[in-house]
Amino acid sequence: MTPSELLSAALEGDRRSRARLLSSLEDRIDGWREVMATLDKHAGEAHLVGITGVPGSGKSTLVGAILDELLESDLSPAVVAVDPASPFTGGALLGDRIRMMAAGDPRLMVRSMSARGRLGGLASGSSSLVTAFDALGHDPVLIETVGVGQSEVEVIDVADTVIVVVSPEWGDAVQAGKAGIVEIGDIYVVNKADRPGASNIERVLTEVAEERAGWRPPVVSTVATDGIGVFEVIDAIGSHREHLVQTGEGDDRRRRRRRAWLRHAIEEEVALRATDPDDGTLWDEVEKGSLDPWTAAARLVNGG
Amino acid sequence: MTPSELLSAALEGDRRSRARLLSSLEDRIDGWREVMATLDKHAGEAHLVGITGVPGSGKSTLVGAILDELLESDLSPAVVAVDPASPFTGGALLGDRIRMMAAGDPRLMVRSMSARGRLGGLASGSSSLVTAFDALGHDPVLIETVGVGQSEVEVIDVADTVIVVVSPEWGDAVQAGKAGIVEIGDIYVVNKADRPGASNIERVLTEVAEERAGWRPPVVSTVATDGIGVFEVIDAIGSHREHLVQTGEGDDRRRRRRRAWLRHAIEEEVALRATDPDDGTLWDEVEKGSLDPWTAAARLVNGG
Repeated sequence: MTPSELLSAALEGDRRSRARLLSSLEDRIDGWREVMATLDKHAGEAHLVGITGVPGSGKSTLVGAILDELLESDLSPAVVAVDPASPFTGGALLGDRIRMMAAGDPRLMVRSMSARGRLGGLASGSSSLVTAFDALGHDPVLIETVGVGQSEVEVIDVADTVIVVVSPEWGDAVQAGKAGIVEIGDIYVVNKADRPGASNIERVLTEVAEERAGWRPPVVSTVATDGIGVFEVIDAIGSHREHLVQTGEGDDRRRRRRRAWLRHAIEEEVALRATDPDDGTLWDEVEKGSLDPWTAAARLVNGG
Repeated sequence: MTPSELLSAALEGDRRSRARLLSSLEDRIDGWREVMATLDKHAGEAHLVGITGVPGSGKSTLVGAILDELLESDLSPAVVAVDPASPFTGGALLGDRIRMMAAGDPRLMVRSMSARGRLGGLASGSSSLVTAFDALGHDPVLIETVGVGQSEVEVIDVADTVIVVVSPEWGDAVQAGKAGIVEIGDIYVVNKADRPGASNIERVLTEVAEERAGWRPPVVSTVATDGIGVFEVIDAIGSHREHLVQTGEGDDRRRRRRRAWLRHAIEEEVALRATDPDDGTLWDEVEKGSLDPWTAAARLVNGG
């Protein structure tokens, strides 16, 4: 099948074609840009939910519980799990249970991606996957990342709704107002809320979580292993979605997301160029040392 | 002082001007690209040593001990410490001791940078700092990063010599051949070598570390807190530097580095554009949805 045949079959709902389409996009096979252009036209309906959290917060268990509830409500969710693949925090991000859920239920599709060997980084790859899921009719699309480092924030900060998951063990870090945590969340989840320190971290989060565009982020307590509080999380997502529509903030985020995705796509194209030795005088001049990288970059990006 | 006056004073060796020049570069004040163009012409002599390691490996202590030895040998080292500033792995990367050393000895300059709020990421900022130190006559220039995630590998993989620091606690992770660790090092250091498991991790590293361009990475054991093994690390750096010269691999790395730096510089320029709402039709078209990000990126980068 050509990429465009595969695309047609996938858009018509053929499950096997969908899986193959996603793989071909991940592999960036010839013609992938044209496929993305078509998918982008079909996308735009899904609510994008970014979920990040500290190591050990039980985030994957929570995602599994959320997916259970969504499928129960007859929705067709999808998950993109983004794994920076550091050998020391890494490991498979998508739990076996979620993979098994997806194998057993055609309404759920999941895909994990790691940074290893990927030109252009995680951001570009994840945005094309999210767009594909959206175009194929999945809603909501969950974007799960490990940690709240820079590259993870880049990926999830462009979601419609960002959920930050913490556990009571991280009370001190949250209290210290450390980077990222209190700035990026639309919803905060204190998972493992049956453990000591839970009420303390809830209180701190409620105090310090920053209001964004007229939305004060709620703090929801969960015990994901027992399904406790999961419905409240989904409820909060719904409230936030409504807020986005009513205030016009949803449109703002969508525009911001498209600019970010363009930026990520440019970075991927640039990465391809950076490893190609035959691609033009400006790159060669920098390599030889007759031009500095900073002047060359400004010329290239500004088309000068 | 104008940027070019500051630059002249710094190149003539005025210490205060050097510090101010570095700050102005970090702040990307008006005219910084012109300053970088001049600095780039003066740079190219320094040996760039990337140092990364797992959390808790005592890397900062080791860097301090290496600096002691270098200053003892009457060299003028500099350090760029790159901190991804994740709230959960972060903290000040440059130890107080190194800062104090720099305050007391004009031959040593240090600078740390974090990812927070930085457009274009760490990579671009660190490459301009490294170039500045090189141009100002520092040699070697040490680039220290936390962890071996993607962005850190990006930063240090372009060094002339890459040192990976581990401690005995990480034996299992190394043995499992996890990402990054066994691929990027030119020299491996097992720090805290007086602890249980040290000989095991040394053996494993010696077996699995990958040969790069005819260089089999040595594994050096250190107890940085006592200065044990530090001279051997410096000796290994010297051997590797010689290898780079003799095989021509040094020129290859330098060319690869300049392409990578151009890539990083482009990413920074692109990041500036991505946040500027008034910067051209292609960006607007993507934002409005009349063009997809991937097609736009290819057009922009390929100048089509």
